[in-house]
Amino acid sequence: MYKKRGLLIVLSGPSGVGKGTVRKELFTQPNTNYEYSVSMTTRSPREGEVDGTDYFFKTKEEFEQLIEEGRLLEYAQYVGNYYGTPLDYVNATLDAGRDVFLEIEVVGAAQVREKVPDGLFIFLAPPSLSALEDRLIGRGTESADVIKSRVTKARDELEMMNLYDYVVENDEVHHACDRINAIVTAEHCRRERVEKRYRQMLEGEC
Amino acid sequence: MYKKRGLLIVLSGPSGVGKGTVRKELFTQPNTNYEYSVSMTTRSPREGEVDGTDYFFKTKEEFEQLIEEGRLLEYAQYVGNYYGTPLDYVNATLDAGRDVFLEIEVVGAAQVREKVPDGLFIFLAPPSLSALEDRLIGRGTESADVIKSRVTKARDELEMMNLYDYVVENDEVHHACDRINAIVTAEHCRRERVEKRYRQMLEGEC
Repeated sequence: MYKKRGLLIVLSGPSGVGKGTVRKELFTQPNTNYEYSVSMTTRSPREGEVDGTDYFFKTKEEFEQLIEEGRLLEYAQYVGNYYGTPLDYVNATLDAGRDVFLEIEVVGAAQVREKVPDGLFIFLAPPSLSALEDRLIGRGTESADVIKSRVTKARDELEMMNLYDYVVENDEVHHACDRINAIVTAEHCRRERVEKRYRQMLEGEC
Repeated sequence: MYKKRGLLIVLSGPSGVGKGTVRKELFTQPNTNYEYSVSMTTRSPREGEVDGTDYFFKTKEEFEQLIEEGRLLEYAQYVGNYYGTPLDYVNATLDAGRDVFLEIEVVGAAQVREKVPDGLFIFLAPPSLSALEDRLIGRGTESADVIKSRVTKARDELEMMNLYDYVVENDEVHHACDRINAIVTAEHCRRERVEKRYRQMLEGEC
């Protein structure tokens, strides 16, 4: 029997670029387009954080048990704590035909890309590249030295993007959110996806 | 000197799918995202059609002169008349950094794909595939014969899509327009395009 499977959407990017802020803004209104996959962590809850909403809070032993059982889609250690994505929730939601949204660190995103190559990988980038572009086009007035250091930084950013399908500049949070929503809509229209889905559907028919 | 070039957007699809209606709806409001490239034709203007808005109306001799001079991006004959896209306008607009939107027949789209492989090609599809999907998922009540003929039609549609980057279902005109706008936004965020643009920008810098 033909079943339509959901799309795995991964938002990542360098530390401090504002991934959490963008993700929270995307889900301030009930999001009918995709489901947020709550991460799991061994760090202690901060003031106001709710178990199951902000994170699933686990002990180190519980987390390591999940690693051993292969029940994490990705995980990483950061400042002495584990962070990871529970596999069961992701799979159940995708199987139900719903898209799943992850907001994770670049190390975790690389693990997910290996396991789910046809996921949708979005890199949230600081606005430094387009700022540099404005300057090179002649709209800016920086000195040669300042431009030189920005060019070096731009080259580093370009290296990080390699793994991703899309690059969204976080110039303003609401613009970044609009672009992410457009990307999800567009990705569902990509010919390869449409074709694959319909070929699966037609398999076994007449 | 670095210059940002616009994106060539091509909307096509089978005859009768509603390309013209969708394109008109996209441009009912002043479209700040892309410029419509008015086609050229040798057919006579219909009631209410304005030269330069609906088409550039040309004589057969003028049109054939343009073909000879290589000044058409694509052209085709249809019911005894020529239809084509003037190359100069398209190039000048792209060079100015603006996106250009073409709404053309599938024969013309194939010519443009050859000449501008990194254009953005959108196939407007009738809603028959997703209607079939609904039926196969079990939401419909058609007889086996009806489903069989729909499956055959679906296979034909799938063959036509091959050349395109995206497939937009024309279930409702405003939905189709929303998807097309989302696709254009998303395509500007595609990593390959962003990367290429920034690498060109960085060439020659420090």
